[in-house]
Amino acid sequence: MAEECVPVIRYEELPEGPVVVLLDQTRLPREETELVCTDVPALVEAIQSLAVRGAPLLGIAGAYGVALAAARGFDVADAADQLAHARPTAVNLGYGARRVEAVHRAAVREGAGERRAAELALAEARALHREDAEASDRMAEHGSALLEELVPGGGLRILTHCNTGTLVSGGRGTALAVVKAVHRAGELRRLWVGETRPLLQGARLTAYEAAREGMAYSVLADNAAGSLFAAGEVDAVLVGADRIAADGSVANKVGTYPLAVLAGYHEVPFVVVAPVTTIDLETASGADIEVEQRAAHEVTEGPWERGGGPGAGGAGSAVLAPVGAPAYNPAFDVTPSALVTAVVTEEGVASPVTAAGIAELCSASRRKASRSANGMMRS
Amino acid sequence: MAEECVPVIRYEELPEGPVVVLLDQTRLPREETELVCTDVPALVEAIQSLAVRGAPLLGIAGAYGVALAAARGFDVADAADQLAHARPTAVNLGYGARRVEAVHRAAVREGAGERRAAELALAEARALHREDAEASDRMAEHGSALLEELVPGGGLRILTHCNTGTLVSGGRGTALAVVKAVHRAGELRRLWVGETRPLLQGARLTAYEAAREGMAYSVLADNAAGSLFAAGEVDAVLVGADRIAADGSVANKVGTYPLAVLAGYHEVPFVVVAPVTTIDLETASGADIEVEQRAAHEVTEGPWERGGGPGAGGAGSAVLAPVGAPAYNPAFDVTPSALVTAVVTEEGVASPVTAAGIAELCSASRRKASRSANGMMRS
Repeated sequence: MAEECVPVIRYEELPEGPVVVLLDQTRLPREETELVCTDVPALVEAIQSLAVRGAPLLGIAGAYGVALAAARGFDVADAADQLAHARPTAVNLGYGARRVEAVHRAAVREGAGERRAAELALAEARALHREDAEASDRMAEHGSALLEELVPGGGLRILTHCNTGTLVSGGRGTALAVVKAVHRAGELRRLWVGETRPLLQGARLTAYEAAREGMAYSVLADNAAGSLFAAGEVDAVLVGADRIAADGSVANKVGTYPLAVLAGYHEVPFVVVAPVTTIDLETASGADIEVEQRAAHEVTEGPWERGGGPGAGGAGSAVLAPVGAPAYNPAFDVTPSALVTAVVTEEGVASPVTAAGIAELCSASRRKASRSANGMMRS
Repeated sequence: MAEECVPVIRYEELPEGPVVVLLDQTRLPREETELVCTDVPALVEAIQSLAVRGAPLLGIAGAYGVALAAARGFDVADAADQLAHARPTAVNLGYGARRVEAVHRAAVREGAGERRAAELALAEARALHREDAEASDRMAEHGSALLEELVPGGGLRILTHCNTGTLVSGGRGTALAVVKAVHRAGELRRLWVGETRPLLQGARLTAYEAAREGMAYSVLADNAAGSLFAAGEVDAVLVGADRIAADGSVANKVGTYPLAVLAGYHEVPFVVVAPVTTIDLETASGADIEVEQRAAHEVTEGPWERGGGPGAGGAGSAVLAPVGAPAYNPAFDVTPSALVTAVVTEEGVASPVTAAGIAELCSASRRKASRSANGMMRS
């Protein structure tokens, strides 16, 4: 299984000090290279260059980054700030960083020494990592049960976008975790993988995971999704999310919204799979979500080289447009809840997607967290 | 002006024999290289590799190809067959080849010698080339008048897909000819250029033409069009066509149909611009249009190289997906007439797009052709 072969993130205590080690996703599928971050700026750079990416995994990266700062004696509040603001759209990043910072701050406030506070911060980061893996499995269960209801009879042809698997998560992923569960149950006829321009996370990363899992899959230019819908070749669309607003609007990788419109037009279920940490009740609606605008060269030069993958970039990048061509390059788009058939989380499913349903998923999560915190205090 | 700088196709009589010379569009925007075709198989290969492309230009290429076969003493009927079937979707290719073949056959039947028949074939090909240039200008007039009606007030933000300009035509193009007219009238606020994966005709070719014309333009990943619509940043969509069926269904570059669905959802006019030769009354409906499926490597390897453009391909191609990844790669899609606000031709505009309106455009064209043929006979 992919998740056993490829550790996407780990915290390691080397003789020369603690480090956060990342699988450099910009070099996949060509190379499995690791990036070793010894400080927070290196990790922030890895986040901004998308060496590490995907909403849940960004949460884990943010958490380990704060733990690293604590262990190395850097300013923990400053580290949490830098990490939380490394990219604007994924709410999980700030969640992970702030959660570990809060534990560290509480420990310091209660008189723990620097070393003990750092240990507690790391334990919190590891707990978040573990919870994320468990959440993957529960999302997979809820998601595959939902698909059985929505599209009875099995033999599913699922269209997905971007990468939402092992590479974005402490576990099997979000939307792709559901696809894997369907595949393992023998009910996946084909996974349609949108390549996901400009950075090709679908073609590079989802195809890589699908091939490792032995799924029947095909990559397509994002453009070609319309033809699949028109030909009746899509039974359901499954995507992840970077932020879900209180009204159920979903920010996700650019290209998600056009798929939602197509799915709606063709009456195909459009399902968003994400952990509860992706829900941001402080963002009232889709219009309030800040969408990251990225550099033009990702579109006009292409980030990959001959024989290479994205990230190999630089002077040798492929020329895809006239030199200096301006580009419009939003990293995400926002899909209104009316186009979303269901939001699947580890706490259950909201369908139809309403503000009340989204709030209920968060309450369920808070109740559990509070029970678990009480449990810890008792232990 | 681009059309004066870059001859995209010409028939030349060199001392060593006649040739068809093509601007190699696979190498744009990096290099302006010419391909010299001395026989029909070379021209067929240029058509299949997309060195020459775009529905109207394919008609001209087919016409010159048959004239070349006649001049060089090859089998003219066989040449017309090879050219007509080089690619399945663009109806103009067969139209150009068959039209010149018919003139050649008639000349031979009426006792013309081989040399005279070849001269008449070439004259017919040149006439088709000239007519196409004139048709461009009339499409530009009809199209810009239509836009004034549909979106009064000027300052237009137009979204286009693929390349439909000087590079596809004997003149200024089809949809892009309309954009150029709007631009020259000072009424173009911005041209949004969808990059048009997998072969990036938008990013490479439309951006190249837009830059030469001095337009305000931005390239975008096709994926990002949804965000533009959602933000109210698109006043009209203008695209070309490779075949228009009798019921008004439009086959065009893959990615057109998703734009039509988005335009419909956002109530933005969706306008198709194409010469009457693109209409194929023998194809009853969209379902009857054969859509060319192209090789997986265009999607999974990317056809371009470091520092290069598509066509530089081969062993050094960029790796965009795991080796051997299967891909779904239709070259075109089909948009039903209900999603098309108007079809603009050199003979006028059909709006709403109905079978009767499409038939009327063809009748207008036939009446004129018949007047012109009578004129020629009298002269």
